[in-house]
Amino acid sequence: MKAPDLPNRFLARQQKLRSVLEKHGIQSLVVSNLTNVYYLTGFRGSAGLFALGTGGAALFVDPRYTLQAHEQAQGVEVHEHRGRLLQGAGKWLEGGRARRVGYDDHYLTCAGFRELEAALPKRCALRPVGGLVEELRVVKDPTEVGYIREAARLTSTVFEEVAERLRPGLRESDLAAEIEYRLRKQGAEGVAFETIVASGPRSAFPHARPSSKLLKKNELVIFDLGAIISGYAADMTRTVFLGRPDQRVKRLYNAVLDAQRHATARIVAGRRAGAIDAAARRELARRGLGRYFTHSTGHGVGLDIHERPRLAKGERTPLPAGCVVTVEPGVYLEGLGGIRIEDTVLVNEGGSEVLTSAPKDDWIIS
Amino acid sequence: MKAPDLPNRFLARQQKLRSVLEKHGIQSLVVSNLTNVYYLTGFRGSAGLFALGTGGAALFVDPRYTLQAHEQAQGVEVHEHRGRLLQGAGKWLEGGRARRVGYDDHYLTCAGFRELEAALPKRCALRPVGGLVEELRVVKDPTEVGYIREAARLTSTVFEEVAERLRPGLRESDLAAEIEYRLRKQGAEGVAFETIVASGPRSAFPHARPSSKLLKKNELVIFDLGAIISGYAADMTRTVFLGRPDQRVKRLYNAVLDAQRHATARIVAGRRAGAIDAAARRELARRGLGRYFTHSTGHGVGLDIHERPRLAKGERTPLPAGCVVTVEPGVYLEGLGGIRIEDTVLVNEGGSEVLTSAPKDDWIIS
Repeated sequence: MKAPDLPNRFLARQQKLRSVLEKHGIQSLVVSNLTNVYYLTGFRGSAGLFALGTGGAALFVDPRYTLQAHEQAQGVEVHEHRGRLLQGAGKWLEGGRARRVGYDDHYLTCAGFRELEAALPKRCALRPVGGLVEELRVVKDPTEVGYIREAARLTSTVFEEVAERLRPGLRESDLAAEIEYRLRKQGAEGVAFETIVASGPRSAFPHARPSSKLLKKNELVIFDLGAIISGYAADMTRTVFLGRPDQRVKRLYNAVLDAQRHATARIVAGRRAGAIDAAARRELARRGLGRYFTHSTGHGVGLDIHERPRLAKGERTPLPAGCVVTVEPGVYLEGLGGIRIEDTVLVNEGGSEVLTSAPKDDWIIS
Repeated sequence: MKAPDLPNRFLARQQKLRSVLEKHGIQSLVVSNLTNVYYLTGFRGSAGLFALGTGGAALFVDPRYTLQAHEQAQGVEVHEHRGRLLQGAGKWLEGGRARRVGYDDHYLTCAGFRELEAALPKRCALRPVGGLVEELRVVKDPTEVGYIREAARLTSTVFEEVAERLRPGLRESDLAAEIEYRLRKQGAEGVAFETIVASGPRSAFPHARPSSKLLKKNELVIFDLGAIISGYAADMTRTVFLGRPDQRVKRLYNAVLDAQRHATARIVAGRRAGAIDAAARRELARRGLGRYFTHSTGHGVGLDIHERPRLAKGERTPLPAGCVVTVEPGVYLEGLGGIRIEDTVLVNEGGSEVLTSAPKDDWIIS
């Protein structure tokens, strides 16, 4: 499972991180979030700790992961450690004579903090520097974009396959199982989140779990799914109607679709994330549907299914070229159901590229 | 998705928690871990915060989850909160005139702690009380045992179905996809962890991910899988050999099987968790295999796949009746592969009940 590209990819990320740290006046850092550990080292175990010290970088793993760490990790010394990994990292940093040690306050728990503090000598000052690795992760390199592109393509393909066979009487949970099976059989490493299949009034829950409910005629059905390829996720939502929608449902669908298109059309490197959200919101508000749009318009996607930037009200961060975001406005009406349409979109210098290819016009299945 | 049993089940848990808190001299508590939130309220969303105050209990959710919270949560006021949930909880606790507010230091991040601290008035003292809810969760009630029993049964059934069709040439990742599909189609809500299928030298990684490797003749293959039923997990591992194992592999397999049986035979309410681990370890050490057993013997299982108690060296906690644990010794030899055998086991007053029914003697598939 070594990464297929250049061996110094991880080392390059560590070097970038080191120069960011220097701007904060910090020489050492402890990284406990496993996604960040993977990003910095290539190690994909379920337990591990990365530390950047004055003399180098180290990965701490328990004996279950020693072999795997030697196989996967790059640019680090691998330390097998029996016992608490934070103590191992603390001792190692002590040897490196660190004075200021950064930690990720968005992930390190209060108990973990006390453990790290106890393992370090008194002369060390711990500094909260949450989000530094996440900041590096916002802009994807071409290899990363390639993985997300492939994940988005596969997600679209599988949705289209399953949509073709949709009919009343199918069970939500069986459809979700079918989707995940097809994703994996066709090359996904796994799914980025529990696939959502929610029909009828249940589709009004933006994050419904698939239930044993059967699809019925004349119902909305929301599908929200995403494949993972080499650790990178795609995220897609489609809403369909089984039967003949009345005028009200058609108006609602077209409103969400317009909101989704307007928001996507606004995406270009340099534009503020909040402007994309505003575009979707404006389109729905114009038709009196603003209050049914109960979440933000989108989020970054990559190694995590929810990353920076947030496409939400008031977000002033300019979108950088090479970041990948979702655009997913929705409306939710208690009793009637919900409609959400979501693509995964790459931000470019001149505009954007929609990576999700499944059609959005073709939503009525009669 | 309301729990099928008595409506006051969650309220009863909250009351137990309140009396434990009182022993710590604390009137209020903030619970951020979502599994604990589910245990205490029945709410199963992916974002939410539970707070116990002097006057009652509250669940804080963002607008995405308002409908779902009203549908699922019991024994709490539901508060829809736009913005940071910790701030909402802080304000609500302030109204309740709390003086000492407990928080779960094993889960609350350093950043979350500062947020909560800022939302509370100066007179409030925050007290770390990690693990209180987890402690309540150790002993399962009959309904919970029923879910785990069903999850273990389903896990066994699906493994047996897939084992029947095992042959060289199948792909690890396809087998994992097949297992997860069958689990879901037959009633699992999902899987407790990413299914492991690891063959040949890859089986020496105790937590290998399924890869594109094809099964070959004369290889060990480890399967580690678990269904979820109503939120509760089972955990099972079986190792098989495709072909004709030589004497060495047979000796290794029988050693692990003996260790697994000896450890299971020692389980009874009141016995120390470490004694179970010692039994497995002794059996392997006796044959010179101690150093290949690189992890602990087992762990509690329930709403989380890894819970208390740990069946590990030196653990002095007595096992209570009604707790459910795994027993899973293993040996891992670089180059050759690994062997692990794992059951999910209920601790009883008079002994134990193995909930996993898949056979362990039938491991050679020729």
